[in-house]
Amino acid sequence: MTSRLTIEYDGREFKGWARQPGQRTVQEELETALAVVRRERTKLTVAGRTDAGVHAWGQVASHPGDPASSRSLNALLPDDVTVLSSESTDEDFDARASATSRTYCYRIWNRSERPALLRDRVLWYPYPLDFELLERAASCIVGEHDFEAFTLSDEPYRSYRRRVLRAEWIQRPRLTEFWIEGQTFTRRMVRSLVSYQLDVARSSRELARFRELLEGAPREQGGATAAACGLYLASVSFT
Amino acid sequence: MTSRLTIEYDGREFKGWARQPGQRTVQEELETALAVVRRERTKLTVAGRTDAGVHAWGQVASHPGDPASSRSLNALLPDDVTVLSSESTDEDFDARASATSRTYCYRIWNRSERPALLRDRVLWYPYPLDFELLERAASCIVGEHDFEAFTLSDEPYRSYRRRVLRAEWIQRPRLTEFWIEGQTFTRRMVRSLVSYQLDVARSSRELARFRELLEGAPREQGGATAAACGLYLASVSFT
Repeated sequence: MTSRLTIEYDGREFKGWARQPGQRTVQEELETALAVVRRERTKLTVAGRTDAGVHAWGQVASHPGDPASSRSLNALLPDDVTVLSSESTDEDFDARASATSRTYCYRIWNRSERPALLRDRVLWYPYPLDFELLERAASCIVGEHDFEAFTLSDEPYRSYRRRVLRAEWIQRPRLTEFWIEGQTFTRRMVRSLVSYQLDVARSSRELARFRELLEGAPREQGGATAAACGLYLASVSFT
Repeated sequence: MTSRLTIEYDGREFKGWARQPGQRTVQEELETALAVVRRERTKLTVAGRTDAGVHAWGQVASHPGDPASSRSLNALLPDDVTVLSSESTDEDFDARASATSRTYCYRIWNRSERPALLRDRVLWYPYPLDFELLERAASCIVGEHDFEAFTLSDEPYRSYRRRVLRAEWIQRPRLTEFWIEGQTFTRRMVRSLVSYQLDVARSSRELARFRELLEGAPREQGGATAAACGLYLASVSFT
């Protein structure tokens, strides 16, 4: 039997998903709770390894064996991580390998005064944004591209080509969201794309140049990385 | 000249609005920043004195004299309070006396698993809610009533009669909100009304009894008080 978990977490106090010696991570907290409830060491496989400070409201992980009750897990877990569901699934389900796409949402608080209520939950962006330019930038991202300029990783990838299924900006009162769905992502890809698009929308970078960079360029040309606190892993799709 | 401020704050780390010796309060933080920027001691009058843990995204305060720049104030203020605007207004403006109504929003996270991302920003309510009963309860509140049963105060009021202009429940995905607008409120009135209505919606209290209590009854009959963390002062109206 294989079990599947859906998880929500507030990334602020975590050094990301993946277990690292001496660091507080989501994987570590969950595996510790699972070991108590299931009475055996349980290793989780995850759909999207989030970085330090990144949040999730729809992370998915899997492990071999029977599911633990989500109520028991939540009673043991700290208050910044919650198991939304824990259930048995197909024997060959693997949260990483079976995932067909991941969807991220990046949230921007666009007004001149800094947010008190949503601090650490959004990127505060006090400058005017040309929404039409944002939409045009997002439309360039959809499809298959080479994201080397928008990747920040200690280890090189074999290929920086990735397929983006959806990339779109949504404007709500004050809150501006970038939604992106892709099969897989390179490291820091979403946050780098957000940062470059904001520069385009503020006219400090060219849309034409953005389009060029999406065909492959060294990292140095891809600009900055938007803060982790605005990023949420929203959902994962499976076959 | 008189100045008017609009203020947002995260109530979690504050012992409410009103200055109290040895406590961290919103008034204290703002008056300290104002004294620096305006180079004189400045006393604030506020539209809605919020209790410990209560948030605001549209609090209004006033003080005599020239306005301080909101940018300068925000540079001095801690990150859980933000001045949204600071401007000169009519000489006879007084945030308390000139206010014709206050609007509060109470937020409830209605799902079986506790919220990780919105903890301390919503009331977690894991039980099913009968939305129609909530709406019927809210409709009883509108108009002039005696709110003694829904008041929790160290000092007695001369009168517990208050006029409520609007009371309504709004259902969003998972998030359920209670909106109430009144000329003035007694202490803990919104949170007590929320708690009783939730009991009605869960069928542990009677709607008919709620209607009776709104005509005046001792506090003991008014039930519990919903947690401060779900309450937001949303806006204030003036003539």
